[in-house]
Amino acid sequence: MPLFSKGIRALSRSFTVLVDELGEKSERAGKNIYRFDVGVPGVAPPAWAVEPLIEALRRGDTSVYSYSPGPGLEELREAIALDLRAMKGPRVSPDEVLVVSGGQHAMFVALASILDRGCEVVVTDPVYFGYPSLIEYFGCSIRRVPTDPGKGFKINVEALSSVVRRERTRALVIVDPDNPTGRVLDKSEARAVIDVAASADSWVLVDEAYMTLVYEGGKEWLFDMDPSRVVGLFTFSKDPGIPGWRLGFIYGAREFIEKASLVARETMYSPPMPAQLLVLKYLTDPRRKEFVEEARRTYRARRDAMVSALSSIRSVQAYKPRGSIFVMADFSEYLERLGTDSQGLARTLLDKVGVATVPGSFFGETTKTHLRLSFAGEAEERIKEGVEAVKEFLDQL
Amino acid sequence: MPLFSKGIRALSRSFTVLVDELGEKSERAGKNIYRFDVGVPGVAPPAWAVEPLIEALRRGDTSVYSYSPGPGLEELREAIALDLRAMKGPRVSPDEVLVVSGGQHAMFVALASILDRGCEVVVTDPVYFGYPSLIEYFGCSIRRVPTDPGKGFKINVEALSSVVRRERTRALVIVDPDNPTGRVLDKSEARAVIDVAASADSWVLVDEAYMTLVYEGGKEWLFDMDPSRVVGLFTFSKDPGIPGWRLGFIYGAREFIEKASLVARETMYSPPMPAQLLVLKYLTDPRRKEFVEEARRTYRARRDAMVSALSSIRSVQAYKPRGSIFVMADFSEYLERLGTDSQGLARTLLDKVGVATVPGSFFGETTKTHLRLSFAGEAEERIKEGVEAVKEFLDQL
Repeated sequence: MPLFSKGIRALSRSFTVLVDELGEKSERAGKNIYRFDVGVPGVAPPAWAVEPLIEALRRGDTSVYSYSPGPGLEELREAIALDLRAMKGPRVSPDEVLVVSGGQHAMFVALASILDRGCEVVVTDPVYFGYPSLIEYFGCSIRRVPTDPGKGFKINVEALSSVVRRERTRALVIVDPDNPTGRVLDKSEARAVIDVAASADSWVLVDEAYMTLVYEGGKEWLFDMDPSRVVGLFTFSKDPGIPGWRLGFIYGAREFIEKASLVARETMYSPPMPAQLLVLKYLTDPRRKEFVEEARRTYRARRDAMVSALSSIRSVQAYKPRGSIFVMADFSEYLERLGTDSQGLARTLLDKVGVATVPGSFFGETTKTHLRLSFAGEAEERIKEGVEAVKEFLDQL
Repeated sequence: MPLFSKGIRALSRSFTVLVDELGEKSERAGKNIYRFDVGVPGVAPPAWAVEPLIEALRRGDTSVYSYSPGPGLEELREAIALDLRAMKGPRVSPDEVLVVSGGQHAMFVALASILDRGCEVVVTDPVYFGYPSLIEYFGCSIRRVPTDPGKGFKINVEALSSVVRRERTRALVIVDPDNPTGRVLDKSEARAVIDVAASADSWVLVDEAYMTLVYEGGKEWLFDMDPSRVVGLFTFSKDPGIPGWRLGFIYGAREFIEKASLVARETMYSPPMPAQLLVLKYLTDPRRKEFVEEARRTYRARRDAMVSALSSIRSVQAYKPRGSIFVMADFSEYLERLGTDSQGLARTLLDKVGVATVPGSFFGETTKTHLRLSFAGEAEERIKEGVEAVKEFLDQL
């Protein structure tokens, strides 16, 4: 068999694959599994957002099937720019927005635009497990900056400064609100990230997949602090909840968007049309505002239920997240008792108690004694039940 | 502004962009433009193939919105494997099929799996303009093998042998049926491609986007001649005609598919669900056979109309294609008279006669005096009218 590329040889069974396997195991195990592993909401998008697409399909409009422009439908780019403004986010123009084919595609396109073999990328520890394998695929080194679990996973700014290197550091990757910790950057952290990146003349990629899910206080917009080096990534997988339809966007300086659109074209030619038509309706309908507020209320209640239930387990430390759909909880005492690691505990809880979680070690050294629990996929009552089952099991140890 | 990657710096305004601009110009010019430039059919997929998707959307099934497995829905991979058999094509198993997000994604994933900076890729001249920019993005050199316009663009096997180099040639790219020439490989050409690739231990990528559109005789299946080095690419953009929905597949040896699925995952996570549901229904419905046969009859009649109309223009040489949706025609005498090149002639015909074509120079040196005319987007009558208008214009020169 002829040769494979270096990039492919760097890719092995990633954590994404392991998480998928856990998920499939949960699927097979049947309905009674408490799904605290999933990263996407269990609600469909509102019926009113789907209606125009259904109508167009019924009429047999051929335009529904045709290519969109490579950077996305013009009206959608406008709607996204307006939506960011409405959220008090960045004031970008439509040509500073590139519609892409989902969150993974946004990550790939943004990194492909700026990474070369041999360069370095700085990430937090823990970090969403999608980033390390991608960085390795591009032949770059990963530099991890520890965060403080005792302080809500606050970024250690000193460690951050010490790890960047001019000429070598090509990008800082920040997830905000964070997956897996739910941390939302405060003003001083945001300022520090920008200053450190400027000192190394590095890009800052800010993954804002959960930007509409902040429960208390506001969100800092890194882009506003330095539009020339900050690039934002977003996916519509969580809001309005169409993960399988593959749609997202990248925003940034016009020159970045022009270059990134070349990569988007080489990888995908154009983003999928059905998702664009659905999201165009979703973003431009006045009911969108109420829909998001309702989602936020629902998730906030679920978060509170999750944190409060976890806190009732003796010696478990659960950080109450200000955003996203995840709680990171430290189970170190029980790992010791069981003589296992977080991966072992996750498997045990799935097998013995029917509760699916994701091991903290998948995200980094800092959370190697933690589990990540999502509160997006189950209702409050189920969250209480599921965590109660974990508690009962651990109490018997 | 911080640095961009080498890959992005290699990408400039590609022919794809130029073709899109021509297309947009045609759109703006209004309804009366004869669209011989388009690479996709002007017919929507059959209503019966869309119906199950519409029903699922109406019911609000959340499963319609969820991720599919990274390599595609299991049932769809099975349906594709069965469909290939039914066409007397390769006998592959479902795990030798990788569902990807359209033809461009198939090309990207296949090349990303095997190319490293500095290696060489052999293509025919002319070649579909999507390949050269992609090969440059990966930092590889392009070696072009001339074809013979006088013999239906038959591949020059001697030139092919002389251009491959062990250790350097990583892949041969063959489009079959060909875009832009409509050539369908005969047995001896197919054999030669395989032998030459084996001599250099190189991969063979065979782009079979138009595999269902062969009008006379059969099609050779390179994969059957050497399953260990041949990888097939397909897009559902032409059949059943859903270009904007982004779906295609790659087939090949299990090991290749496993590696390629890692790249597919890193770039897109999973292929879009709406397209998968539509194509699953399309491939597994008994009406599919009749639908394709009808499409083939329609296109054959359009091809005959196009070739016969072109042949009525004095000194224009039009090659009658055995497959695909394109006719390549040599206008060299008129280029001389107008003192222009094929790009100039294409612009002139669009401006003066309202006929949109693609310049042959976009595909290579061999066809620098040609135009590529698609017969997929217009009905027979319009094809005759459009070519007649070209004839009248050229006669006056």
